[in-house]
Order: sequence, then structure tokens, then C-alpha cells
Amino acid sequence: MPTTAREFHLIARPQGEPAVTDFALVTRTLPDPGPGELLVRNLVLSVDPYMRGKMSGVRTYTDPYELNAPMEGGAVGVVEASTDPAVPTGTLVVHNAGWRSHALLPASRVRPLPADSPVDPSVYLGALGMPGLTAYVGLRHKAGIREGDTVFVSGAAGAVGSMVGQLAALYGARRVIGSAGSPEKVAYLRDELGFDAAFDYRAAPVREQLADAAPDGIDVYFDNVGGDHLEAAIACANDFARFAICGAISGYNATSAPRAPRNLFQIVTKRLTLRGFIVSDEPHLAEEFQREVAPAVADGRIKVRETVVEGLERTPEAFISMLRGGNIGKMVVRVAE
Amino acid sequence: MPTTAREFHLIARPQGEPAVTDFALVTRTLPDPGPGELLVRNLVLSVDPYMRGKMSGVRTYTDPYELNAPMEGGAVGVVEASTDPAVPTGTLVVHNAGWRSHALLPASRVRPLPADSPVDPSVYLGALGMPGLTAYVGLRHKAGIREGDTVFVSGAAGAVGSMVGQLAALYGARRVIGSAGSPEKVAYLRDELGFDAAFDYRAAPVREQLADAAPDGIDVYFDNVGGDHLEAAIACANDFARFAICGAISGYNATSAPRAPRNLFQIVTKRLTLRGFIVSDEPHLAEEFQREVAPAVADGRIKVRETVVEGLERTPEAFISMLRGGNIGKMVVRVAE
Repeated sequence: MPTTAREFHLIARPQGEPAVTDFALVTRTLPDPGPGELLVRNLVLSVDPYMRGKMSGVRTYTDPYELNAPMEGGAVGVVEASTDPAVPTGTLVVHNAGWRSHALLPASRVRPLPADSPVDPSVYLGALGMPGLTAYVGLRHKAGIREGDTVFVSGAAGAVGSMVGQLAALYGARRVIGSAGSPEKVAYLRDELGFDAAFDYRAAPVREQLADAAPDGIDVYFDNVGGDHLEAAIACANDFARFAICGAISGYNATSAPRAPRNLFQIVTKRLTLRGFIVSDEPHLAEEFQREVAPAVADGRIKVRETVVEGLERTPEAFISMLRGGNIGKMVVRVAE
Repeated sequence: MPTTAREFHLIARPQGEPAVTDFALVTRTLPDPGPGELLVRNLVLSVDPYMRGKMSGVRTYTDPYELNAPMEGGAVGVVEASTDPAVPTGTLVVHNAGWRSHALLPASRVRPLPADSPVDPSVYLGALGMPGLTAYVGLRHKAGIREGDTVFVSGAAGAVGSMVGQLAALYGARRVIGSAGSPEKVAYLRDELGFDAAFDYRAAPVREQLADAAPDGIDVYFDNVGGDHLEAAIACANDFARFAICGAISGYNATSAPRAPRNLFQIVTKRLTLRGFIVSDEPHLAEEFQREVAPAVADGRIKVRETVVEGLERTPEAFISMLRGGNIGKMVVRVAE
């Protein structure tokens, strides 16, 4: 029986901050699954900073979204019809056909959630999904965290940053410092996630606040923000500090070139290593990530918080809000119960 | 018999470009060597970019020069008097008591040159000295050069850069590209050193010239210059390119913060690694460096050129000229035959 699906298309490439009018919710009819295909009804959608890059129409490490075509993104759904006995009806799956109510997918393009998972399905879009893996890969394999390190993470109240800080503590950091964009987020970092120090980057220059928070300097910086934050981290870095460069959300909506750090020569004098990375290069690390991190999420050593927006039609709004910092923890859109 | 030595003292910390009046040539009398000491008469002195940093009075990875005290720097000299039988009179030694005619030194602070060395002693200040080791460490161990890489080096006609380019070819680079500051230097790179491409960074924007010289992008960048050069290298980098960040001579005399690259986000999208390093951290690599590189210098696969300034009293002038790019190859000062 054909299914009516609603899906978002990008209809205009945003200049600066995206507007809801850059997106259109389109209805179409999906046929029944062909051989090896599944019909998935989405329950929760992910909105993530990297999507902003895909809206710009420039190829970087990933293809841009096409205009007037279904958008993509992480999602958890339930299989409603299946021609693959390995993924029967009723299976919860995580996949990349988000921004829509239903998707017709080859079974090879979904990953069933663990049957006995003690956590909500949406956690597989955050702490145990791409953002969590990003935090893990960057902190463990790019920055090479070691016991006793002082770790600084920017954008610390976001989906990735909140995992970085908590993983850092788990891996024996001596001191974990985070920056975020509001007093409420700072309180969340300090009081709920147990960061040793946190500050509101809007309240005073990052460099001064980081110097106060890290009187003995930092050994690891996990960069989600770029700009002033990167400059401050360089200024406060100890010799041989390692930086995992993950994102630069401060510039994603920028229409002119961002403010650049003026102290890059300290990369030499302090013998810093800066490593840019993209989590999709590292699928081979997903298994060890789940093995190491899932138990800590399950038993509460790692705390998970979400900002949930209700309703498929509000996905663009959720996305725009996330880029403005409107989320604490992972921003998700609930599209069905 | 006491010896009259002439030695340079830094008497004022330069603001911007150093002036000869920042230095004073002071005469003093050295006593005879005590137990385990040597009297060394210097033959050739080194002037190097890193010395500019030591003039600024700020501690970075190394202590600044003290005012009104003998300056230091690489030098080759001959032992004139010795109380250590392991380093007899007549031995040629390399050491760090430069900027002076004679030095009284513990024998432990000198390294005798190989007795049968087929190259001029001054080469141990350049191709087979600190600058050569810098090139080797950065290219081999920080950038991890591999066969088939396209390598770009800035400041390519200098002591370090000219070694980087030649070592890159030796290690199987597919294409070696250099920038330098004059048509004469560009000709030197292309015609004498065998660079595949070279350009005068003063002639047109670095980014355009590098894009022309590297139509297939670059895999390794060895940065001696910073600023525009670093931005251009990021812009032209292939995915997973590795940058050895060695220096930023474009900013050494700057009195305001340098122009900073505006495209640092490409560190993420291209998954770049930038590694700052200081050669003095890597003394353990000196032996393999000599083993791998000395034969290539001896048999002419690696070409050595020097810019020689005559006379101790002209050392500040040589130093200032070197910072301006007045040298091709290693800048040295000959103080005695």
C-alpha cells in the first residue's frame, strides 16, 4: 500500500543565517518496498551543525544538498514494511534519511538499534550516535587524551561538546573546562555534567576567561567554535598541547571571512599539533566507541540531555535555533511517538 | 697566556627591524682554560632567524638574550688551547658560543667535526647543522613525507628551505615547489636545486602563484614564513595534507599582530594536520640525520650554497640582512681563515 511521505527540500541556498523560507515541506507518495528495501517511519530526526555546510552548494568533504530534492540527516525510525527478513517490521533503525516522515531505503543503509538497549532511541542520534563518536574520535584519537591532562572544549553544552567534557573526565583528565553561550548552559556544565570550570563566552573575552579557568594552561583543546576560541586556546596552551579541530560554528553563518587567530606563531614556539578531522572518515572506530562509551551512558556516568522540538514541520526552525545555540545537549525533532 | 676576545652584546631590544646600534662589540680578556675547558678561536659564525625571537626579551621555548652579555649562536672554531686530551689543540669544533671571536668553553659543550669530512666546516652550520636537521626533522618526522607527495616549502632559498626542497626530492616527492623573495632566488631554486616549480612571492599573490604551481594540490607544506603563505597552503592543500610549522619569518620584525589566515576552517574540511616543532627538542634525531643526509651532501646530490659576510664586526649587519632575505642559502660570517 503506497505511503504518503512528507519531506523537506532545500529550495534556496541560505545567505548568512538560514530562514525557514529556504525549506519546503513536500508531500509525495512512496511505493511499497522493492526487493531488499524497507519502508521506515521516522520517530526522531537529528539537526546538526555540519548540515549548514551542505546547504552552501560548495563541495567540501561531502556533497552539498541538492536544491529541490529530499534532504538528508540522521534519524531513528521504525520499520513499517520490509522485504529483508534480517530487518523485520517493527525494528528500530538508525539511518541517514532524515528531514522527512517516511523513507524508502535499501536495508544496507540502516543500522538496527541494539534490541536490549537501555537508553532512548534518540540517544543514537546524540551521545551514542554521530556526535558522541565525533567527541570520542577527536578526544581519544586526534588529541590523544592522557591521564592528567587539562582539557578545554568549546561549545561544551552542545551534543558533541557535552560528550567531550564527560569523556575527558572518564579518561582521567585532571581538569575539564568548557565554554558555552549562556549562564544557563554554564550552570548545566558545572552542576549537572561536573565540569571543573565553565564560562559564558558572551560575558567577557574568551582569552581572559580561559586564562582564569586554566591557571596552569591547557593540554588538550577540542574546538567546535573557531575564531576567538581558537586564539584563546593557543594563548593558554601548554607546550606540546594537542588540538582536535572539529568545527567552527562561529563562522557557519558568516558572510565574510571570520576573525582569524593572530597568534599562530605560537604553534611553533609551543610545539602545538592541530588536527582537523571528520567523523565520517573513521567508521572503523564506531565499534570500539560503542564498547567503551555505551556502558557509561547506560549506567549514568555519562549524562544525556536533549532539547526536543515537536513536529516534523518544525525541523527547519529546530535547525536554525541549534545554529544560534538554542539547544542544551542534543537538538532533536520528534516527528512521531 | 690570556686572550683578547671580541664579542657582541645586545645592548637594546629591537623594536621592529633590528638596527646595528642594538649591538655592541665588546673586548674582554679570557683567562687560560681551566680543567676540562677549551679555548676556541671561531672561524665561522651562524646568523639564524630564531635569534630574532631571543632579542625580544620574552621567554618562549628558549631564554631571551640578556642585555649587555655575550650573545650566543652556532659557530665553528678551532681549539687553540685545551686541558681535555679528548679534544686536543687544532680540533675543529661546532658549538653555540658564536657572535664572538674566541670562546672559553667546557669540552662538553662542543662537538668535534668528523676528522675526514669532505665538506667545508661552515657546512656544519647549515646543510649538516641545525638548519639541515630542522629541515630533516620537519619533513621526515613532522610532515611524514611519503613517496609521491607534492611538497611546498616557503622561504625555499634559505638555509632550511633549500634543504627541505632537496630532501623532498631525495625522499621521492613527485613535485617540489618553493617560494622565495626575488627572481634571482627563484632561478636558483629552479636551475641549481632542481625544484619543479618556484615563484617570487613578491610578484603576485601567493595563493594564485601556488595554485598555478600546484594544479593537483599539495600534500606537504613546510612553513618558514607564515601569514599569506600559510593561508595559500591551506587553500591549495589536498585532503589529509600535513604541515610542518617551523617558522614565520614574515612576522619576526612585526610590531603589530600579523595577518592571519582566514581559511582555517579548511583544517577541518580537508582534515589537515599542522605540527609546530623546534629542532632543539629532537637531539636524538641528529645521528640518523647525519647518517641519511651527510652522504648526499658529500656526493653532491644535495647542493650547498652560502652567502658569506666577511668580518666579525659585520655580524649584526649579516643578521639584519638575513632577516630581510639578503641571503641565498645559508648566511654565515667568516671571522678568521
